[in-house]
Amino acid sequence: MAKLISSLELPLSPRPANKSLTDWLYAELRCAILDGRLKRGVRLPSTRDFALQHCVSRGIAMLVMEQLRDEGYLTSKTGAGTWVNERLPDDLLTVCARMPAKPEKAPAFLSTTTRAIRPFQSSDPDVTLFPIDIWSRLNSRHWRRATKALLGGGDSAGYAPLRNAIAEYLGTSRGVQCQASQVIVVTGTQQALDLVARLFIRPGESAWIEDPGYFAAAWALRNAGANIVPVPVDADGMDVKRGMQLAPRAKLAYVTPAHQAPLGVTMSLERRIALLRWAQSAKSIIVEDDYDSEFRFSGVPIPALQGLDKTGSVIFIGSFNKVLFPSLRLGYIIVPEQLMDKVLRMKYQMDLWANSINQAVLTDFIVDGHLGRHLRRMRETYAERRCALQDAAEKYVGDSLQLSGMHAGLATPAFYRAPVASREFEREAADQGIDATSLERYSVSKRRIRGVLLGFAAFESREINHGMQKLAAVVEKFERNTKH
Amino acid sequence: MAKLISSLELPLSPRPANKSLTDWLYAELRCAILDGRLKRGVRLPSTRDFALQHCVSRGIAMLVMEQLRDEGYLTSKTGAGTWVNERLPDDLLTVCARMPAKPEKAPAFLSTTTRAIRPFQSSDPDVTLFPIDIWSRLNSRHWRRATKALLGGGDSAGYAPLRNAIAEYLGTSRGVQCQASQVIVVTGTQQALDLVARLFIRPGESAWIEDPGYFAAAWALRNAGANIVPVPVDADGMDVKRGMQLAPRAKLAYVTPAHQAPLGVTMSLERRIALLRWAQSAKSIIVEDDYDSEFRFSGVPIPALQGLDKTGSVIFIGSFNKVLFPSLRLGYIIVPEQLMDKVLRMKYQMDLWANSINQAVLTDFIVDGHLGRHLRRMRETYAERRCALQDAAEKYVGDSLQLSGMHAGLATPAFYRAPVASREFEREAADQGIDATSLERYSVSKRRIRGVLLGFAAFESREINHGMQKLAAVVEKFERNTKH
Repeated sequence: MAKLISSLELPLSPRPANKSLTDWLYAELRCAILDGRLKRGVRLPSTRDFALQHCVSRGIAMLVMEQLRDEGYLTSKTGAGTWVNERLPDDLLTVCARMPAKPEKAPAFLSTTTRAIRPFQSSDPDVTLFPIDIWSRLNSRHWRRATKALLGGGDSAGYAPLRNAIAEYLGTSRGVQCQASQVIVVTGTQQALDLVARLFIRPGESAWIEDPGYFAAAWALRNAGANIVPVPVDADGMDVKRGMQLAPRAKLAYVTPAHQAPLGVTMSLERRIALLRWAQSAKSIIVEDDYDSEFRFSGVPIPALQGLDKTGSVIFIGSFNKVLFPSLRLGYIIVPEQLMDKVLRMKYQMDLWANSINQAVLTDFIVDGHLGRHLRRMRETYAERRCALQDAAEKYVGDSLQLSGMHAGLATPAFYRAPVASREFEREAADQGIDATSLERYSVSKRRIRGVLLGFAAFESREINHGMQKLAAVVEKFERNTKH
Repeated sequence: MAKLISSLELPLSPRPANKSLTDWLYAELRCAILDGRLKRGVRLPSTRDFALQHCVSRGIAMLVMEQLRDEGYLTSKTGAGTWVNERLPDDLLTVCARMPAKPEKAPAFLSTTTRAIRPFQSSDPDVTLFPIDIWSRLNSRHWRRATKALLGGGDSAGYAPLRNAIAEYLGTSRGVQCQASQVIVVTGTQQALDLVARLFIRPGESAWIEDPGYFAAAWALRNAGANIVPVPVDADGMDVKRGMQLAPRAKLAYVTPAHQAPLGVTMSLERRIALLRWAQSAKSIIVEDDYDSEFRFSGVPIPALQGLDKTGSVIFIGSFNKVLFPSLRLGYIIVPEQLMDKVLRMKYQMDLWANSINQAVLTDFIVDGHLGRHLRRMRETYAERRCALQDAAEKYVGDSLQLSGMHAGLATPAFYRAPVASREFEREAADQGIDATSLERYSVSKRRIRGVLLGFAAFESREINHGMQKLAAVVEKFERNTKH
């Protein structure tokens, strides 16, 4: 039977300043039970003795005992006392051992906060030019008048005024044909891709992807179980005929018609039409990612492929995260009407809805004309920087590094002559303090590409010039080695 | 060959006030080509004539022509003129037909913004008591000093100071044993469930779920292809032995040990230990959803099952969305160390990272002690309302409606005697202006339950009293019918 331990003098750790007496006593007793200092079957002293021993009120002692009894650590019987439960298994005995301190760590690519942005890091906009004051003012305005509806649950499709603003903006500036009722607000391109891939791909089904192409789209498709079919890209965009030879019954085609990721070419009208026709006959979905299309430096922006589609084959996706700032986390999907319920339901089942206040602020930012002004300003700035990059390349690298036309976007591909793998080029550049992303990272078929991606958007002319001189040294080194 | 139409007098729609000349002219010509008013092969007038006819400058006419040529709608040859492209297929001819206006619509359950909250809607906190002024002030503070790092890309695991604050908060208040390095910030419970289900379930594998249980967890599991195994719940929580009989090799078990959804019972220590032992031997994952555990009215909160786990079998998930306000969209997953890289990578591939400013504001809210104060205040308020509900039930419904113990949460199950399906009860209550969610909605096995869920958190005593009188009429009606 239970042995008496009414003289129990269980050593307890001193109470931390931020813990209440109850919390502390509870935690100490629970630990003592779990790590075996209080053995199974052992009888505890009366709450009166207990309170005296540990200098707490009897009320607290009773509260703690009751709690432990409710949770099954103790058993008590009126008049007979309280025991540590017999059924506590031995395998819990070390649970209270303190865990060792452990430094923060995460794979480098999962975090952008720890790395410094240096030329020519390719995906970053220049956030220092974002009109923080305006955004902040709109933000305060919404918080001052925060309504119950805005704080409460949201709408899975998005905040209604934002959906209207997006439909309007895309109609005017991107040639997208849609109603507000076809807009779903998401956290960005990646969530859009993930959602669409899950919804339209069953494991083993084929999906076309541009090659070279956007690797994060490949992740989303692979996570959905897709059989990835790399379709080559040339100066007219994805080679649709080749796609039809490779996988005529593919379930989905992922394309970046306005500004191909990463090569920056525009898909020709002929290819666009061929793609639409194929999708219609194969009953496939075209996912049009409007990648970096907002920053076009020559001509007016190429209208969306979606605007040509009259059979509901195109799902159009885009994001405000690069246009405004990457930590915003708001983007959109434009869904053909007949697919709307299906896509919306999936969005709901993935994460319900997006943050409402941020959506309300963004709505004002668009409707009050700040988005248009910001886009124009950034387009001019980026155009200047693009020129600075071109000039610097001509000055320091000459024919050895050929920059692409760069009609749009935040980065440009640059091709070199030396027969060096672009991963090796990337490594050498990194050693010189320069980010030059290997185009092979975008190669779905693992084809070798003698080129790197150079971002220019986030850097001033001085930085661009300085960076290009370092890059010239890299190019020169490889060319010299080749000649030997 | 191409016929001359230099006398072309294409009727164009008038220019809208908000469109530039260039945009308007471009859109009109493109539409004319696509809807067949400008036929394939037709030759356009010179830019000079064109400019004269349409009262635009020659520069604009050239710009528009060039753009259309770049996009493949037109072909031009120096000296010979410009033609509409021959290769435009006929099947694009109606693309410019204006889309009919369409009213907004979405399945009702996807939107919470349109419905009024009325007693006893079960999932809502009282957002009117949220300290908007404090949150707003912290928000302004962060915007005033918004750094490049905060506007730029984020960390997929979450904002580092928030991860620290969450680890601290959960350790102290929930008995969770974790380091900041085990925390991943997500948008809420639903994203957490979706992520975990996708990662640990392969199509066809079994997953235990409490029955009755949280339907949105079942969605996430089904979307991942799980074979859902409903495991009965009694006063001690999920019947683990039964689960082991039904599906001994299940890959995952979803449980709400602190406060079962929807019945509100607490899982006994014995069951907790049995569940951990099973998970360890079957190499399964336990997903512990800390559902509404923060609002516990009697005793101190039951510590997390996770705190008992020493083999890394438990993934712990929780949310700030109900504790603070539902449109916030921030929650967390606590991941065993050996699984961290895997879970983090998936989070990245799903939607990169969460909004950084909101995370920074939440961090201050926790660290400055506002979360603790808010929780205490809400706990008191909700406890009062719970009493008001109990009192009202005793006064107006007596023995005919039995309310559960209600130790925690924002809602309580209420069981009635009349042999009426709870969907029917729910419908009748709705007709009387009362929300009484049928418990059958939570029944995974479609078992009949004579009970409804009554939320009390978002309603003042007066509303609760008034609502209970209406509910009494519903109960009475069904009891009267039964006696006939």
